Amino acid sequence: MLPADINALRTELSGKILTDVDAMAPYLTDWRGLWTGKAIAVAMPTSTAEVAHVMRWCATNSVAVVPQGGNTGLCGAATPDSSGNNLILRLDAMRALRSLDAEAGTMVVEAGCTLADAQQHAANANMLFPLSLAAEGTAQVGGILSTNAGGTHVFRYGSARDLCLGLELVLPDGSVWQDTNALFKDNTGYALRHLFMGAEGTLGIITAASLRLFPRPAGAVVMVVATTGIATSCAVYRRARGTLGPELTACEMFTRPCLDAVVRHIPGARDPFDAPHNGYVMLEIASWQAEERAHERALMLAEALLEAGEIDDAVISSSLSQFQSLWGLRENISEAQSAGRPVIKHDIALPLSQLADFSVRCEAAIAQAFPQCQVESFGHLGDGNLHFNIAPKAPVGRAEFTGLTGPLNLLVHDMVAEYGGSISAEHGLGVLRRDEAVRYMPSAKSDLMHRIKRAIDPDNLLNPGKVLG
Amino acid sequence: MLPADINALRTELSGKILTDVDAMAPYLTDWRGLWTGKAIAVAMPTSTAEVAHVMRWCATNSVAVVPQGGNTGLCGAATPDSSGNNLILRLDAMRALRSLDAEAGTMVVEAGCTLADAQQHAANANMLFPLSLAAEGTAQVGGILSTNAGGTHVFRYGSARDLCLGLELVLPDGSVWQDTNALFKDNTGYALRHLFMGAEGTLGIITAASLRLFPRPAGAVVMVVATTGIATSCAVYRRARGTLGPELTACEMFTRPCLDAVVRHIPGARDPFDAPHNGYVMLEIASWQAEERAHERALMLAEALLEAGEIDDAVISSSLSQFQSLWGLRENISEAQSAGRPVIKHDIALPLSQLADFSVRCEAAIAQAFPQCQVESFGHLGDGNLHFNIAPKAPVGRAEFTGLTGPLNLLVHDMVAEYGGSISAEHGLGVLRRDEAVRYMPSAKSDLMHRIKRAIDPDNLLNPGKVLG
Repeated sequence: MLPADINALRTELSGKILTDVDAMAPYLTDWRGLWTGKAIAVAMPTSTAEVAHVMRWCATNSVAVVPQGGNTGLCGAATPDSSGNNLILRLDAMRALRSLDAEAGTMVVEAGCTLADAQQHAANANMLFPLSLAAEGTAQVGGILSTNAGGTHVFRYGSARDLCLGLELVLPDGSVWQDTNALFKDNTGYALRHLFMGAEGTLGIITAASLRLFPRPAGAVVMVVATTGIATSCAVYRRARGTLGPELTACEMFTRPCLDAVVRHIPGARDPFDAPHNGYVMLEIASWQAEERAHERALMLAEALLEAGEIDDAVISSSLSQFQSLWGLRENISEAQSAGRPVIKHDIALPLSQLADFSVRCEAAIAQAFPQCQVESFGHLGDGNLHFNIAPKAPVGRAEFTGLTGPLNLLVHDMVAEYGGSISAEHGLGVLRRDEAVRYMPSAKSDLMHRIKRAIDPDNLLNPGKVLG
Repeated sequence: MLPADINALRTELSGKILTDVDAMAPYLTDWRGLWTGKAIAVAMPTSTAEVAHVMRWCATNSVAVVPQGGNTGLCGAATPDSSGNNLILRLDAMRALRSLDAEAGTMVVEAGCTLADAQQHAANANMLFPLSLAAEGTAQVGGILSTNAGGTHVFRYGSARDLCLGLELVLPDGSVWQDTNALFKDNTGYALRHLFMGAEGTLGIITAASLRLFPRPAGAVVMVVATTGIATSCAVYRRARGTLGPELTACEMFTRPCLDAVVRHIPGARDPFDAPHNGYVMLEIASWQAEERAHERALMLAEALLEAGEIDDAVISSSLSQFQSLWGLRENISEAQSAGRPVIKHDIALPLSQLADFSVRCEAAIAQAFPQCQVESFGHLGDGNLHFNIAPKAPVGRAEFTGLTGPLNLLVHDMVAEYGGSISAEHGLGVLRRDEAVRYMPSAKSDLMHRIKRAIDPDNLLNPGKVLG
């Protein structure tokens, strides 16, 4: 088969398509620089109709489509392969707020809208769109839904899929399915939106979404508590959950090496405690009544935790700047941890009751098998989701250290599976975890996924080579 | 083709299968008595392996399988057709609590467990399983998940699908997929469980499920407020949501004729107010701190509502028996409304901001076109879900009145569609709404549903004739 002739499409999308290699370069590599591919073009349509046109052109010309949001994903799902027969589809030009209904508590935004802008649209209406993650200034709504992104408030509000009421989709054949309704309940047929969310662009293109909004709290505080380690950190979570109920709006954890890295590498960051501790839990406590109540509730919890001997120290924010600087300790870990050295990352989930046991056992196994490594874990305690990252104890060459990735993944993920956990809690599979996932996936699930893929994208033109092993 | 020979299966499932017509009779008709079918057998396997065996037998013998939970559905999804080539599959014997992890906040129950028993299992561990609906003593977990059931606490905790973390499934070919994990996050591949939930048994058999548990509130009160009608009822909801945030755990509405019916037909029920009012909103307010706080918050809201002129009167429960009797006013509406007369029922959802406008317009249109009818609506205000039911104004023959069903459905559902609503908010499609749904469904959605059905159940043996129009 001859390579597709891009000229006709280039003429039709004039000014909205890149075909020059240099111009395309920023879109051919993921932001961590782990994967690079080739593309026949980068199309940037400005409407759903244009997206449909591009999809029809790709279907006719057997060109594969790689949808790319803000290109902040961590698993290579948005990077083209090396065939040169991929068209990258970016929806940067489709970022409008189509509607916001504060009374209903819903808004419809286009897929190219950044997460930060989506949050701002909600805030402008004195509402809350609660999804929050480090890349929110760049990550786009389409990508966030396609990967079912998580972040720091999943514990209380759910992940991306839980915040979406409906989608507008363009299917592989270019047909459009618009279902951006603003309904909290709709049981008319299969829940198709849940299939497209989390499919990482392998089934269709999300062009717009109807999202849930929540009442904004009147105020919130952050409390960081110091613990003796993961087991007591879990005890803190249990007491906080039982005591605060829904007023606990985030529950994050990190370990000593993470705080060390932040203090060392992030300008202005400082240890909130006088002495070092093994573990830290960060709790966000909100009130829909008054900020003072959030503070009182935090204080009450701190006293109960101290009395139970579950924490060694606690600090509670008493101003917006303290609130932000305490949150910063957690949000900057990923950046600080990777500063100037290689890190092998894992994004795992465990049943909460197994988290401490797993952590202790897995750290011990790594210490024994890989004495040159240390675990520096942090993550979303309330979700049982750890970024169980592994760093070198002493300076080491990047290639030498990353050469340990395969055997370390095997050790960590085999043990995750033993505890009934997930090897990709929130980042997805992309190409990074695609083949590994097959090792841990029941064959019935893998078979169902392939059947569905064939049913919806029989010519395998939607993000081929991603997700499905 | 010859009819299947049930004898081999009857021998293998001895004591767990009914083939006698009289013994099968209770399972051949839905509980409202609207549909009746025939069956080759009613199988009641006691394990997942036995379910798989039954499914393989059915696949081999081209016998269709009709999964039936508590048989409390309202749309005929669990009733066999008249062919006589249907096997009814009931999981009454699979009702075990397999595990409960209070620390993680999860439990795994088998599909035949009733909703009430599932709630009780959670309560025994001092946790809350928040799904709640009128048929909970009979409805089973498998049916509830297969229909994505709703009820009175969806507004705060989500519908059935939102409370499920994983499924154990038997597929049409008898293969088993077990994924009853207890993970709050898992992005390894397509979200298949969401496809089976809400599919009303047309894709596979749910044999067990992992369910989310929540911290129990320390206490809760119910407040019923009197309004001038639907528009002010919506205003009450908005103020309550903004003021109480997550401490508002239910927000229901009903109109004067509903309260009249309850007071007339339910022993012990009485009007909580001295004077009649047009509309009523029932708010459940919970506190994870103390019951007194729930009462204080309710009082504060009542004062704000009175001051804003949004309500005419309010009553707040001050004891458990008052709490229960006030809730009873809402829970008994469906039974009271149908006592001794025919009622034409609708289960619709609207964007919340359109609810009042829709109601007023639709009532006016019905008054004009069907002067012998009156709307007696009630439902889940916080979800925008109305049971927009229509009763005769004066005594009338049942057949004569139900003859109006077609034209009334058309009027109501066309207007629902005009407002971007759903014609089946929580009850599903079954056979009742199957063909109507096609009228309002985008063809792309219908096409996708058929593709998925063929991919998973190519021989159309799972609950044929249901859901898909």
